[in-house]
Amino acid sequence: MKVLVLGGDGFCGWPTTLHLADKGHDVIVVDNLSRRDIDIELEVESLTPIRPMGERIRAWKELRGQDIGFVNLDLAEEYERFLELLRNERPDAIVHFGEQRAAPYSMRNSKAKRYTVDNNVRGTHNVLVAIVESGLDIALVHLGTMGVYGYGWSGTAPIPEGYLTVKVPTPDGELEREILHPANPGSVYHMTKTLDQLMFAFYAKNDGLRITDLHQGIVWGTQTDQTIKDERLINRFDYDGDYGTVLNRFLMQAAIGHPLTVHGTGGQTRAFIHIRDTVRCIELAIANPPEAGSRVLVRNQITETHRVLDLAKMIGDVTGTEIAYLPNPRREAEENDLAVRNDQFLALGLQPTTLSQGLLDECTDVAARYSHRADPAKIVSRSVWRAGMETAEDLLTELPERLPEPQ
Amino acid sequence: MKVLVLGGDGFCGWPTTLHLADKGHDVIVVDNLSRRDIDIELEVESLTPIRPMGERIRAWKELRGQDIGFVNLDLAEEYERFLELLRNERPDAIVHFGEQRAAPYSMRNSKAKRYTVDNNVRGTHNVLVAIVESGLDIALVHLGTMGVYGYGWSGTAPIPEGYLTVKVPTPDGELEREILHPANPGSVYHMTKTLDQLMFAFYAKNDGLRITDLHQGIVWGTQTDQTIKDERLINRFDYDGDYGTVLNRFLMQAAIGHPLTVHGTGGQTRAFIHIRDTVRCIELAIANPPEAGSRVLVRNQITETHRVLDLAKMIGDVTGTEIAYLPNPRREAEENDLAVRNDQFLALGLQPTTLSQGLLDECTDVAARYSHRADPAKIVSRSVWRAGMETAEDLLTELPERLPEPQ
Repeated sequence: MKVLVLGGDGFCGWPTTLHLADKGHDVIVVDNLSRRDIDIELEVESLTPIRPMGERIRAWKELRGQDIGFVNLDLAEEYERFLELLRNERPDAIVHFGEQRAAPYSMRNSKAKRYTVDNNVRGTHNVLVAIVESGLDIALVHLGTMGVYGYGWSGTAPIPEGYLTVKVPTPDGELEREILHPANPGSVYHMTKTLDQLMFAFYAKNDGLRITDLHQGIVWGTQTDQTIKDERLINRFDYDGDYGTVLNRFLMQAAIGHPLTVHGTGGQTRAFIHIRDTVRCIELAIANPPEAGSRVLVRNQITETHRVLDLAKMIGDVTGTEIAYLPNPRREAEENDLAVRNDQFLALGLQPTTLSQGLLDECTDVAARYSHRADPAKIVSRSVWRAGMETAEDLLTELPERLPEPQ
Repeated sequence: MKVLVLGGDGFCGWPTTLHLADKGHDVIVVDNLSRRDIDIELEVESLTPIRPMGERIRAWKELRGQDIGFVNLDLAEEYERFLELLRNERPDAIVHFGEQRAAPYSMRNSKAKRYTVDNNVRGTHNVLVAIVESGLDIALVHLGTMGVYGYGWSGTAPIPEGYLTVKVPTPDGELEREILHPANPGSVYHMTKTLDQLMFAFYAKNDGLRITDLHQGIVWGTQTDQTIKDERLINRFDYDGDYGTVLNRFLMQAAIGHPLTVHGTGGQTRAFIHIRDTVRCIELAIANPPEAGSRVLVRNQITETHRVLDLAKMIGDVTGTEIAYLPNPRREAEENDLAVRNDQFLALGLQPTTLSQGLLDECTDVAARYSHRADPAKIVSRSVWRAGMETAEDLLTELPERLPEPQ
């Protein structure tokens, strides 16, 4: 298949690009490199050294002899170029990672809130309109988030895959209706994914577009079977307070001897997935799209759930790192239970990669190898959900003189 | 109160501006005059002659001695200017009509779809972010649409005012939950109003903004007690296939001897409100905002429901005009029943202006007075919901030589 990977330069997009190429698909990355621009804005860098896109693509070509295409294009701003790309390349599938993806960044200030909405909503809508205008039969696979559901909304019922059966009272008795699970987003970023859902529902219904929306958990890990082959192919490892995901941050913190940063009580239970499973799920999703005329196919892309504090304790115990309880910059419940259905990917053959010492070690090794690149002033989360909320001081002002050796 | 009316140059915005000014509020219109630009694009004009904003405001000043402010500003593009305006003017309330409001226009082509989303979503989000950033306590009243609910979704249950009580099955029995009524938009325009709802819910919850969302029916009529005072204050009368609303179109068609254009079977039942009630509802809404920390207050702004064919038959019978059944350019159910709750505005004292011969005559008189300005080639609706859908030829190629005299 010919596949466009929108946002193919990012943390999930790049390993997906390589995985799909490795499986024999003809892949073209579409990306405006905005993730690199945001690094510049935040004065932070991926812990792992990320090579320019041209070098990444050359390295893959050397290694595998395969060409990966690259188009530097802003989905929100360059509709005509994107439509022309569809007409010229006639892709079978589009994988859409092309959105600003960090909740803390989306709450950072007015500019970031506005950028997140303006970029994500316009970009996604342009993709939909361009598919319609092209007249091509393209299956769209979008990366959503578990955060569209919120936490603790449905009591002891596990979160379903997108749709919820409810009973609606009427004068003639109860009607059973299957509805899109009510939206309970916790940040402007999550809100944009709830807006995406409504746009997908409309274009699936009005235009018969074939759309899969993947509600993904928090991704952890760094390397996949492809990114590990050559240092020039290495994936991002974000550890900063805006873009770092919680488990990766703990592993990196342990690697440099920084206290593990638990914001609030740590009672938040969240859904997780390893980056190796992300790329497999995308492969399964593009191979199993819905029929034209069906409603949006929603799949929960998660493999396990954990309480944040349990993760911190586990890593703290193994590595001898202490836990620091910091003020929570988010407005969210202190504690919640969480059960999530993920039957669909299991039925399609996904073998879940669950939390294991081997994978934790791999991640810690990557962190240790590049720990000299860490800036300890970037670790504490300071993007607050409302003006005036308390944040912590830095816990470490400089890196320890002797950093742990990678194993 | 000091009130900003966003979109105060439009069909609902201008009479609202005059009504609020007449009630003693200090009103500033914020508008980029985009509605006038779209007239130029569509090569059509309001049947009634609309004066430049400066002249409208001067006429009101002459008549009433009151100043109405005007700021020409694009909400989607000029965030910083809008924020500065809030900081300088410190309004008590904002009435937000500043969105592209025609369903057919929003389906016209890719450019119009994209404009509707880009303009409406960014504009509304900018308003929310600016209120937060200003730190001011401003009540926001937004004009939504009955179209967010869709038609025929809840069986014989009347459509509630925003929120629906449903039962959710869990392993421990059924949970009762009050949810935002599921979104079933019928066009890109209606879709943007469902996106607005989710943004409002987030900002009410995260930032304690005080937001009222008015789900308005199809507006008919032209004049209010204020616009009728001077021809320079006259309101828009849109009759074209994109912006004309159904009842006004029938009245105008009858006035020029054009067959009444029923698209499809006419079995569509819709909710209606007269422009005189629109302006009263806005007055009631800004006087009765929700408390900070409450969820979004949703009020259905409608007074009656009618089947489109019944309206056509009634007007056809009275005026001796035939009905033309044309292909429906929309994708919608051929027929639907509709019952709507509108208890809130009734409880606040609204005296509904229902369909009456006097008001129909007033509207027909306005249409007849300006019928020489009509372009019969603009009457048939040709913005189709999907490429290739059938549309009708013009039913009248030129205006009759002797147009009816206004009574």
